[in-house]
Amino acid sequence: MGKVGVIGIGILGYGVIGSGVTDILLKKARAFSSQAGCRLEIIRILEKDTSKIKASKLDKSLFTQKVSDILNDKKIDIVIEVLGGEHPAAEFIVKALSKGKHVVTSNKEVMAKHFPEFLAAAQENGVDIMYEATVGGGIPLIAPFKQDLLANNISALHCIINGTTNYILTRMSSEQLDFNTALKQAQKLGYAEPDPRNDIEGIDAAYKLAILATLAFHAEIKPRDIYHEGISRLAACDFRYANELGYEIKLLAIAKEQKGSIEVRVHPVFLSQDLLLASVDGVYNAVQIEGDLVGRVLFYGRGAGAAPTSSAILADVIDVAQRVKRGISLTPTLHLDPRKRVKPMSEIKTRYYLRMNAVDRPGVLAKISKALADEEVSISSVIQKESDLSKKAAEIVLMTYPANERAMQKAMARISRLDVIKEISNFIRVED
Amino acid sequence: MGKVGVIGIGILGYGVIGSGVTDILLKKARAFSSQAGCRLEIIRILEKDTSKIKASKLDKSLFTQKVSDILNDKKIDIVIEVLGGEHPAAEFIVKALSKGKHVVTSNKEVMAKHFPEFLAAAQENGVDIMYEATVGGGIPLIAPFKQDLLANNISALHCIINGTTNYILTRMSSEQLDFNTALKQAQKLGYAEPDPRNDIEGIDAAYKLAILATLAFHAEIKPRDIYHEGISRLAACDFRYANELGYEIKLLAIAKEQKGSIEVRVHPVFLSQDLLLASVDGVYNAVQIEGDLVGRVLFYGRGAGAAPTSSAILADVIDVAQRVKRGISLTPTLHLDPRKRVKPMSEIKTRYYLRMNAVDRPGVLAKISKALADEEVSISSVIQKESDLSKKAAEIVLMTYPANERAMQKAMARISRLDVIKEISNFIRVED
Repeated sequence: MGKVGVIGIGILGYGVIGSGVTDILLKKARAFSSQAGCRLEIIRILEKDTSKIKASKLDKSLFTQKVSDILNDKKIDIVIEVLGGEHPAAEFIVKALSKGKHVVTSNKEVMAKHFPEFLAAAQENGVDIMYEATVGGGIPLIAPFKQDLLANNISALHCIINGTTNYILTRMSSEQLDFNTALKQAQKLGYAEPDPRNDIEGIDAAYKLAILATLAFHAEIKPRDIYHEGISRLAACDFRYANELGYEIKLLAIAKEQKGSIEVRVHPVFLSQDLLLASVDGVYNAVQIEGDLVGRVLFYGRGAGAAPTSSAILADVIDVAQRVKRGISLTPTLHLDPRKRVKPMSEIKTRYYLRMNAVDRPGVLAKISKALADEEVSISSVIQKESDLSKKAAEIVLMTYPANERAMQKAMARISRLDVIKEISNFIRVED
Repeated sequence: MGKVGVIGIGILGYGVIGSGVTDILLKKARAFSSQAGCRLEIIRILEKDTSKIKASKLDKSLFTQKVSDILNDKKIDIVIEVLGGEHPAAEFIVKALSKGKHVVTSNKEVMAKHFPEFLAAAQENGVDIMYEATVGGGIPLIAPFKQDLLANNISALHCIINGTTNYILTRMSSEQLDFNTALKQAQKLGYAEPDPRNDIEGIDAAYKLAILATLAFHAEIKPRDIYHEGISRLAACDFRYANELGYEIKLLAIAKEQKGSIEVRVHPVFLSQDLLLASVDGVYNAVQIEGDLVGRVLFYGRGAGAAPTSSAILADVIDVAQRVKRGISLTPTLHLDPRKRVKPMSEIKTRYYLRMNAVDRPGVLAKISKALADEEVSISSVIQKESDLSKKAAEIVLMTYPANERAMQKAMARISRLDVIKEISNFIRVED
């Protein structure tokens, strides 16, 4: 513990987020001191890239290349971890906690993969682990679960928590672009990485969903428990059909709990235009939460960027500082219930949109209906579209009533074996 | 202070909210105990209406008709005030605080009118005053200001915080209803009171805005400082023009701060359809906040009803109980800055929509333009519509560039004096 009236801060990483947080801490020092009730002092910053240190205007003695200079410094009360990635962040966080330092992190991957471990280490050492910045940038999400929504049993989360994919889908929908064109434009604008896989395959969203679902349901949800599917197989015509039917296509991260059984999945969905979530466009994020008392609430804002992420990190820092200042040891009160189970994807139940390329011949629809009915999947509506007379082909689009995922997969296998079917072009799950 | 391990609760009022809170406290007793770290026990309920007491299944000895039975009971740590209205709620709250009891209230009117007084009484007596339930039902709004957004300087709030009016406006917009028809339907569904003035004239929204603006800007904002205008003069054609121009009409509560000067107003606005806020329909509420770090965030949910309001009250109760249990005296840290000033309405600057009934004759538009230009108001677009040849009348609709409210009022006075103008049918401010 540092001097009375001073809270010492160590920062792991001086990239975009780390330098952003440092700048704001220095610029708003006086306001933060008055809010925290004590001075917040940056003691040491870990950064191995000497070019970043050279480019900084800060006193060079603040920087170190050895993490032990931070972990062993008794003047440091709070460690801000903004390295990103699983290793060595995981090891650094556990060590910091075990040395009695509070940790504030913006690193979704490490938090998603090590949540129970960090929680246990924090509880053991009487310190806190704070992670508001891991999901949804500066949008208050973690704190509401810990406090405002505490009186509720949470039954469902529906989240747009990846700005890259939401930007791409918005462009595809509003300008009828194909996936590759929209991706390239996103890359040009810096909204997508040169290697975009983590985002477009739903991996990033799965990390964030693991954190939110763990917190909402008090259950151990690992990223590997989460079914994920990306957006690259969506075609311009899927958006056209969606709009005609009253839907938008969004990459949703969904978590639901029913009697201790938890459903967690990330995939594109047809989302009813009646829902506010369907109007969340561009790089914005939103999380819709359903609680037994509060009903449906939604939180919306920018999900990324140095300033919004710093807003969340600094809220956590000020919160911890206020408590350290008052001598309150507030270790996390969250306790995970090991009895809660993640439901296999095959057991979920939802409606489906199905687009097929078929031979243009009478009786095709009867064969498709029978293949579905054999697996107890019922059709709610059919839109037969665009016969291509020259190719003797027809595009058939239909929506089902709620059906079991396993049954639907079997029905699709049956359909693809039909001699009248050229291919199943796409299928997309529906959320009303 | 009550027994160790028990937090005593007194409830002022056993109406819809009071009985709802009581039911949930009893039903979820075990979960709340584990969250609060102690048992929450209802000690006494104030209710003067004996029919309500008779209708209750609770032990009749819980009820009292004398407020002193609650204020003087040393077993009561937290007083929940759900009486509504200014008096006697104001006196009861101050007395409870002065007797060292924490107060949780859902009463927007009393909070809006007595915020600084309650804050001072709480700080003087080392207790807290909590009011999450006063605005936006169960939507977390107060806590984010106190914690999550603490690192931000807040520059603007744009709020839909009256469900009754938002329901009426949604019906008027989607079904081209006139105001009176939509109001009657809202009354039939229980979304509007038999005497709807508080809602439709923007008074209820002004109470809530006073609370949010006080908190966001650390300034003393009284309801009487807030300019308010209702929705009854909106016509079906205003919605038609709004939609054509890319806007929705909403009753917005707006607060902005620039260099210590604060703008607070409640009135119908043209709201750009590009904003998520414009998609908030029906009885739902939403608050959009702009901060220097976080950018634009929005919170959405049901703004009224026993369950959502109870969700907010109980979150406050559990929060206070956790702190009482730990022996932490967390008095409010909010300090109001007396130097901050509310800007007179005449000094605001915005764009305007103007609809006029004119004589159908050449040169009318030139006269209108000149009247506006004489007050330095410029027209951004004109839609001359619907000449009614039989009446030799024309409806003229125009939008202005940003102009000063005082100048605009003067310009409208000039216009209404023009011999070619039959009436100014409506004018509505614009938020892009």
